[in-house]
Amino acid sequence: MRKVSSHAHRKPIKVALLGCGTVGTEVVRLLTDQAPDLTARIGAPVELAGIAVRRPNKHREVPAELLTTDAEALVASDDVDVVVEVIGGIEPARSLLLTALRSGKSVVTANKALLAEHSADLFEASDASGADLYFEAAVAGAIPLLRPLRESLAGDRITRVMGIVNGTTNFILSGMDSTGASYAETLEEATRLGYAEADPTADVDGFDAASKAAILASLAFHSRVTAADVHREGIAAVSAADIAAAKGLGRIVKLLAICERVSVDAGDGSGASEGISVRVHPAMIPRSHPLASVHGAFNAVFVEADAAGEMMFYGQGAGGAPTASAVLGDLVAVARNRVHSGRGPRESAYAGLPVRPMGQTPTRYHISLDVADRAGVLSQVAAVFAEHDVSIAAVRQEGRVDDASLVIVTHAATDAALRSTVDKIGGLPVVREVVSVMRVEGEE
Amino acid sequence: MRKVSSHAHRKPIKVALLGCGTVGTEVVRLLTDQAPDLTARIGAPVELAGIAVRRPNKHREVPAELLTTDAEALVASDDVDVVVEVIGGIEPARSLLLTALRSGKSVVTANKALLAEHSADLFEASDASGADLYFEAAVAGAIPLLRPLRESLAGDRITRVMGIVNGTTNFILSGMDSTGASYAETLEEATRLGYAEADPTADVDGFDAASKAAILASLAFHSRVTAADVHREGIAAVSAADIAAAKGLGRIVKLLAICERVSVDAGDGSGASEGISVRVHPAMIPRSHPLASVHGAFNAVFVEADAAGEMMFYGQGAGGAPTASAVLGDLVAVARNRVHSGRGPRESAYAGLPVRPMGQTPTRYHISLDVADRAGVLSQVAAVFAEHDVSIAAVRQEGRVDDASLVIVTHAATDAALRSTVDKIGGLPVVREVVSVMRVEGEE
Repeated sequence: MRKVSSHAHRKPIKVALLGCGTVGTEVVRLLTDQAPDLTARIGAPVELAGIAVRRPNKHREVPAELLTTDAEALVASDDVDVVVEVIGGIEPARSLLLTALRSGKSVVTANKALLAEHSADLFEASDASGADLYFEAAVAGAIPLLRPLRESLAGDRITRVMGIVNGTTNFILSGMDSTGASYAETLEEATRLGYAEADPTADVDGFDAASKAAILASLAFHSRVTAADVHREGIAAVSAADIAAAKGLGRIVKLLAICERVSVDAGDGSGASEGISVRVHPAMIPRSHPLASVHGAFNAVFVEADAAGEMMFYGQGAGGAPTASAVLGDLVAVARNRVHSGRGPRESAYAGLPVRPMGQTPTRYHISLDVADRAGVLSQVAAVFAEHDVSIAAVRQEGRVDDASLVIVTHAATDAALRSTVDKIGGLPVVREVVSVMRVEGEE
Repeated sequence: MRKVSSHAHRKPIKVALLGCGTVGTEVVRLLTDQAPDLTARIGAPVELAGIAVRRPNKHREVPAELLTTDAEALVASDDVDVVVEVIGGIEPARSLLLTALRSGKSVVTANKALLAEHSADLFEASDASGADLYFEAAVAGAIPLLRPLRESLAGDRITRVMGIVNGTTNFILSGMDSTGASYAETLEEATRLGYAEADPTADVDGFDAASKAAILASLAFHSRVTAADVHREGIAAVSAADIAAAKGLGRIVKLLAICERVSVDAGDGSGASEGISVRVHPAMIPRSHPLASVHGAFNAVFVEADAAGEMMFYGQGAGGAPTASAVLGDLVAVARNRVHSGRGPRESAYAGLPVRPMGQTPTRYHISLDVADRAGVLSQVAAVFAEHDVSIAAVRQEGRVDDASLVIVTHAATDAALRSTVDKIGGLPVVREVVSVMRVEGEE
């Protein structure tokens, strides 16, 4: 058995921490509490060289002598081997990490927005100097997900990644499902309980999930995908009627980040070509689907690969300690690479698959209509579907003269064809109101 | 974007495949089908140098010119960089892999029995030569699990790993739960459907799960644990009465592999000391627990860590293609390490935590008794619990004169105290029969 102390004489790995909020504070705590274990696992001790913050007097929980307001000087210091970034946002994080990578310093970051927008620059700098760039904490917090996608499944062909990657919206949708309350009421409750920020835009409009989807799609399909490539719809338009309609069909509404291989025939005679669909939108999934029972602030990601089949990864997607756990895992990896002169996996965007526009993406719709209940309604509605080449999977007609409803679930068709169908149906005189339109996922 | 072809000039990584059964055949297929992708991901092409089998004429699905019966010569060949072992069993696998590692060849193996018994020799040989030793496929098939434990959670403190890691026993217990049939009937059905082998001993007696538990405990707790250290109970003694008792309490019986940190006070005045419990036995878990809904031949592993909190990994635990996916993931990693002169993580047994005997392990029991229904039974039974310092969490008494039952769920106590309690209760004149005794897990 090796002893912890046998590594004490090795040159320590010096770490610069950028940012010291909820996650940063936990990183400092874990570095201190687990020091002997980290030393044994890495083969050398890890030491904090400095912590860059904006207002040093606000951080009484970390050693004062480590605090600095000069992040540039800290990152440029010869005394630093690894830069850990938990500031978030694009600048100054981007410039600081480029400086670090260019000078050969390893980088660990939890910054999803930065990775989703500027991964090309960062990977280029990492490739040029040979410095490691790790970012497990950027997606799904503590859940080991990027390492499995990048490494464990590197010998397989991933066909789909579908997940609940935003805790705030999952908390709100879970709440709407269990209480039947409106979106506005449930958001208010989530804000009061601290599950939603005062300005919830990044979460409820799907920006946060879209950044994560871009990162997941890049890794899963070995292609370069940025946040701007992601079709994005938030949950603000999800109504109590949508939630009730899903319940009536044994389904539940979730905000999903979906990355999948799609084969598209542009119809120009060139045949079908392979591409990827990357999107974030609310969708109904069967209550028996493994993702359906992921409630509250938890995250879960469902992965399908040709040989491995279906897999699911589940855990805490946010929070100081869980995110810090993922950061520390990466820190051990890059520090070990420095001790053993190794290198982590590089960016692999060799496949260069094109991202298909949402209109070309095959999907399925659930449509609930308030209709005039008289003979011929169904035939008029069905004619519109046929006209758009959309095939109907199931129909349910209910009610009497003044309160009739028609619920339709389609087979897969392109999103564009489905949208045109819904638009035209909404204009039929026999249709009083389009009550709910929602995509359907998680079933074939 | 890098092109696949740009790597074609790199020196190929030569692979020797040992064994060509269900998994080996899939490995050959994936190596062929995914060749361009593997080349791009590794940075060099992968080529099969040879396939060692016992009866070459039985393998028409792989190229005949690659087949050989001389595994020793294949492993010793200068033309081989990586040895992939899917023979299973201890010998000749052990000798072949030691030869490979000692000569600096990287090893990928799916051999759980070998890892669980001889990991010390293998890791020593790997350390001495600097050759990689990867074995993701040895536990839970396609589910990325060992890499997350070894790497993603390397900065955290894992406190428990609890999982369903044997598909055959899970299929049988799922069947007993849904039909109410006996163990013998359900095993017969599983054998007929091909879910159980003709000789099911390795599965139903828990040997397979125990090997996996030893591997998981070693990685999670940075300690050396072998199959012989694992307390093992199979499912042959699980009765229809046990299954029914669990159902009546909102629980379900699963065969669990459990690895957890335990703090034990030996009672000699030296205070509590840290150790680990590693065990495989049937247990009742609440139907609301994430592991409860893992049915049929699927595997799932629940992990708890101090900072990361609760996580679950779910997927296919066996089968040719899923296992081959895990083997290929490791093959990409070791091949990439050869191209980039890197090295995978070493064995880390620095913590050297002792494995506690089952008797010292804190656990909880469910006990169902057939009793004489008269005043004083409960007080006599309760007195035996008190005498052994076992605290009762819940009691349910049912029935009339001739058919009375008493169901007791305990608080945590050592397994030894619980066993003594049950033995003594079984001897009380007022107790007609001990109907069911089952450990309770997954709740605090």
